[in-house]
Amino acid sequence: MSERSCFYGGVGKGDETRSAVLDEAMRMVSAIGMRGLTIGSLAERTNMSKSGLFGHFKSKEQLQLDVLDHAAELFVDLVLRPALKAPRGEPRVRELFERKLIWDGLQYGADGALPGGCIFTNLATELDDEPDGPLRDKLVRHERDWHEVVATVFAGGISEGHFDPSYDPVQFAYDLHGVMLAHHYATRLMRDPDAERRARNSFESLLRAARVVQP
Amino acid sequence: MSERSCFYGGVGKGDETRSAVLDEAMRMVSAIGMRGLTIGSLAERTNMSKSGLFGHFKSKEQLQLDVLDHAAELFVDLVLRPALKAPRGEPRVRELFERKLIWDGLQYGADGALPGGCIFTNLATELDDEPDGPLRDKLVRHERDWHEVVATVFAGGISEGHFDPSYDPVQFAYDLHGVMLAHHYATRLMRDPDAERRARNSFESLLRAARVVQP
Repeated sequence: MSERSCFYGGVGKGDETRSAVLDEAMRMVSAIGMRGLTIGSLAERTNMSKSGLFGHFKSKEQLQLDVLDHAAELFVDLVLRPALKAPRGEPRVRELFERKLIWDGLQYGADGALPGGCIFTNLATELDDEPDGPLRDKLVRHERDWHEVVATVFAGGISEGHFDPSYDPVQFAYDLHGVMLAHHYATRLMRDPDAERRARNSFESLLRAARVVQP
Repeated sequence: MSERSCFYGGVGKGDETRSAVLDEAMRMVSAIGMRGLTIGSLAERTNMSKSGLFGHFKSKEQLQLDVLDHAAELFVDLVLRPALKAPRGEPRVRELFERKLIWDGLQYGADGALPGGCIFTNLATELDDEPDGPLRDKLVRHERDWHEVVATVFAGGISEGHFDPSYDPVQFAYDLHGVMLAHHYATRLMRDPDAERRARNSFESLLRAARVVQP
């Protein structure tokens, strides 16, 4: 990646550079958290000048906000958009789960997009004690969006007659989030070789409890 | 807390000082993580001299290990020991859950023992990407102990005839951990007023799925 591209390239080229820089910033945040992300540390990592990066992001605060939005866009591309192509109801709930598992596995490989695992899960414990502010607020907003999608997709399964109408979609979203958090924990901290199998078991139990019993 | 106590007091007094200092260190780690804990920052917080603290802990690394053991002892006192007094089987599983909820709520009040919530949950995402070393290893060991207790207590419920013998106790421990992680997340990051009610719902669903169906 060359620093000159953002000064001498057209808008397209500048956008490409910006996106590549944000990819790298996202990798840093995934591994070491927002605390480790500054214009200076990012400049070092990307071999760009600090002034070049300031041109792109104006401030550390703006850079952090942009990284979060960048990760949210990637999440939409890799998890939400493909899952919403599955048929409504249980198949779509299953696809959400599968895509989220893939997302949590983006750490793998030398060039993994998220070497420290799900950036949102890491930031949840890093930022939860921060005072209210644009960064914490943005994270909470992205998280809320995700839970709302899960609840809505689950509610679609009720309309389709797959799930029990008395089952609360918000509770399902809460429970599924617990399954994913346990999976992140079992994979990353505990290095449990059974993590994925366990997560699949938990997910199947959730579906079993939610399903309409065929008479 | 006076620095002199550890130099001029008897062994008992020194132990008391040490314990009070570790309480304060634990509060710091709960709020800002291990990264924020140094002999210097702890000295500032406790109004003790750095040399006094070096006398107690020898190094930052040792201080961090001692804080983790200190938290684990508190966890045994506040969660495990009382829960193990409940009758074997489902009542003991319930008591574990109730005590863990109390533990996760130690943040409350100006003098809360864990202002940032469960220290182990916070450290799980802070240390998961750290290279292997004494601190990460110790955290994993404490976590494993906890999951083993949960699985063992659940297995006791199988012997008592409360739970289905085909239900895997390790899976139960995994699922219960997910419930607790979701509760921590919903309380701390999302400030969800329904967090505890949701966690109780999830817990009851787990028990329902595990229970022996009365013929």
